[in-house]
Amino acid sequence: MSVGSEDVFARLERGRDRAVAELCEFLRIPSISTDPDYAAEVERAADWLLGRLAAAGLATEKIATEGHPLVYAEWTGAGPERPTVLIYGHYDVQPPDPLDEWRNPPFEPTIEEGRVVARGATDDKGQSYAHVTALAAMLAERGELPVNVKLLIEGEEESGGESIERFVREDGASKLACDCVLVSDTSMWAPGVPALTYGLKGLAYFEIRVQGPNRDLHSGVFGGGVENPGNALAGIVASLRDPATGRILVDGFYDDVRPLADWERAEFAALGWDEEEVRRDLAVPALAGEQGYSYVERTWARPTCDVNGLWCGYQGKGAKTVLPAAAGCKVSFRLVADQTPAKIAELVRAHVARVAPPGVKVTVEALHGAEAVTVDATGPIAEAALAAMADVWGQKALRIRTGGSIPIVGTFADVLAVPVLLMGFGLEDDGLHSPNEKFDLVNFHDGARAVVRFLDRLGAA
Amino acid sequence: MSVGSEDVFARLERGRDRAVAELCEFLRIPSISTDPDYAAEVERAADWLLGRLAAAGLATEKIATEGHPLVYAEWTGAGPERPTVLIYGHYDVQPPDPLDEWRNPPFEPTIEEGRVVARGATDDKGQSYAHVTALAAMLAERGELPVNVKLLIEGEEESGGESIERFVREDGASKLACDCVLVSDTSMWAPGVPALTYGLKGLAYFEIRVQGPNRDLHSGVFGGGVENPGNALAGIVASLRDPATGRILVDGFYDDVRPLADWERAEFAALGWDEEEVRRDLAVPALAGEQGYSYVERTWARPTCDVNGLWCGYQGKGAKTVLPAAAGCKVSFRLVADQTPAKIAELVRAHVARVAPPGVKVTVEALHGAEAVTVDATGPIAEAALAAMADVWGQKALRIRTGGSIPIVGTFADVLAVPVLLMGFGLEDDGLHSPNEKFDLVNFHDGARAVVRFLDRLGAA
Repeated sequence: MSVGSEDVFARLERGRDRAVAELCEFLRIPSISTDPDYAAEVERAADWLLGRLAAAGLATEKIATEGHPLVYAEWTGAGPERPTVLIYGHYDVQPPDPLDEWRNPPFEPTIEEGRVVARGATDDKGQSYAHVTALAAMLAERGELPVNVKLLIEGEEESGGESIERFVREDGASKLACDCVLVSDTSMWAPGVPALTYGLKGLAYFEIRVQGPNRDLHSGVFGGGVENPGNALAGIVASLRDPATGRILVDGFYDDVRPLADWERAEFAALGWDEEEVRRDLAVPALAGEQGYSYVERTWARPTCDVNGLWCGYQGKGAKTVLPAAAGCKVSFRLVADQTPAKIAELVRAHVARVAPPGVKVTVEALHGAEAVTVDATGPIAEAALAAMADVWGQKALRIRTGGSIPIVGTFADVLAVPVLLMGFGLEDDGLHSPNEKFDLVNFHDGARAVVRFLDRLGAA
Repeated sequence: MSVGSEDVFARLERGRDRAVAELCEFLRIPSISTDPDYAAEVERAADWLLGRLAAAGLATEKIATEGHPLVYAEWTGAGPERPTVLIYGHYDVQPPDPLDEWRNPPFEPTIEEGRVVARGATDDKGQSYAHVTALAAMLAERGELPVNVKLLIEGEEESGGESIERFVREDGASKLACDCVLVSDTSMWAPGVPALTYGLKGLAYFEIRVQGPNRDLHSGVFGGGVENPGNALAGIVASLRDPATGRILVDGFYDDVRPLADWERAEFAALGWDEEEVRRDLAVPALAGEQGYSYVERTWARPTCDVNGLWCGYQGKGAKTVLPAAAGCKVSFRLVADQTPAKIAELVRAHVARVAPPGVKVTVEALHGAEAVTVDATGPIAEAALAAMADVWGQKALRIRTGGSIPIVGTFADVLAVPVLLMGFGLEDDGLHSPNEKFDLVNFHDGARAVVRFLDRLGAA
């Protein structure tokens, strides 16, 4: 093979400990984008990252937005005749709740058996920092990159991504012009088996609030006389889905769902997913979901409805006989092509208005939306990515889908009209959005090598 | 009238400010019985009360139990030929949550427009302390009481009342022998209109916990593949009640319900309850509940099902796309004669087992139970109580029911076989179990006078 990357690999090998130490520094910043109380920490994470990129030799720019800043960096020394790669990632993280289930505090990274455990370890600080590490090593070793590189790392991926959406729509065509977008915010197929993800679900996320009486009441004195917001909320949530068939009962919900193609169902089946192993790993009595579809089909390619949070009344120890004044929930739908969050929001609002009992006031707030997106995982650039991964892991790289959502991917495909490569270094059991999120350091290091290899392959093409 | 109480009334009048100051001291002790973290405070409230009773001139005894202590006191100087009254109350309180809805901290009593605002103001420290104030004034003024008096003040009324239940069953017949039980833990009909309550609902209180996967999951990666405990819980709760008719759907739930008698329905209707005023006061779009029954019938005399608390997943600001590992709720049924909490617990367990989806583990814990009870509000002792109230308030005292539960009342009636008088000094809008619970001081003072008057009437009979 003509694309020797060994020089940089050797440098990466020598710098392993320092790279991990730097990643831990990054992970120590609680950049929780959804919670306004953490806005200063989110900004601190942006500044930290800008500092690292500048030190690596890239020209950096902090782009102010109405929300959290965008981190931008570029190295364009390869010249206009060489390809340009836009690397996307995010430096914000999910809230760490429930805090008491973490073995160690979520923002005090610990290394356990070759894994770094911290909020954001995989999603997406670890994966983003693999790119930074790769670029820094290439520039340090060679003084140049084989292609032009732009980086755009956002701070709102976990909270709606509105700022990057606006930026890409307004300034993307000129500022972000490129030949492909490279994103590492997904998973490998399995430990040691790399994959390119070609399908992402969309998302329509709602907060539903039920207001009953103007104060908490004694459930004995007032019970039976006035609607209980907790009972009402349970009824609304339960009405969204048929428990027997797993079908979503919102009128019109399935109208725009693109059915799974026969070739996809065959390819999914050929992957040989072990459902019993999933069941055992999660320790549930049985897997569940929409009738008529396999686990892989349901999680990768069928729309879903999940409660993300519920609250009402007394949650402490023992018995409190209160008829609570209010109740609320967070509930989200994962969408598939060609559903849109805007239309789903309309349908959900109409459904809730129809089923809400007359004794309470109900509000539905759309918190977050993302289009479902399917990218093309064929063509020379995708082939270069698959080959680079195969080089590093010594295993054929698979093409897979995921139930996760990355709101900006659809916008990149739309505005930039170039291939988007979802080259993930995570694993299914990394605990994304969960307590004790982790990232296998072997995947951090191999991820950095895969990035080097991909850029070398692209530069040599 | 031959039962002059004016001597004691004059002393009560002079001692008003001191009595309120003492009540505030009592209210400052956070005796939250349901929460084990407050056990020492519950004990402190018992000790404080014992001190006041001893100072008033009663013989006191702190009765240890497996839970919180019972406060016992007696004055038997009237001799065996005179009647004996057993006064019951409770010195424990409900948890103060939600804390941020209190205008002032719940255990820092404040006086606002003639009302004392604090957790336990009415329920039941204020009402219990009206009795203590009455007895202290009588003993101070006269050196004696017109009848023998025993007091039994418990510390677990808000958390199951198991200790007093055991004590009354084991030692009640000898230790508590009396001619009637007097309880002030209910409400008046309206401001200025006293009432004797003759019907209390029972209670069957449950905590239902739903366990899904062994960890919180990413709702995109796992959604649709595994049952969501939040959706499952909502389905279970929603299945308990028909939202259209307000009927409880647990098989067999109504089997033992004693229908409302025609005379009761007529008497309830004659009270002229203003449902529109209730609706306006609670600021709800409409009242709600079981079809075919009036507001008074539903709240006083029909069984109900109320969510008291719900919890699951992320409850913070913004969007967190988590598929939570677990969910839970507190849900309680108010019962009427002849339902029993034990049978209802059986039925609810069977119902939950039937409707729970196969992908989760569901547990149902019975936290608290009380029998429904109907006491006789006729006969000479009840007449003495009604007359005493009429003397003090200058208004005919009504006979009413309530949806509240006082677990020990049924046991008293059963073991002691004497009339139980529910002479309430609270008001419907006192905010029992709610933020900013209050007690109108006029009712505190008039309540003490009503106790004096009742004992004088009984002694003169």
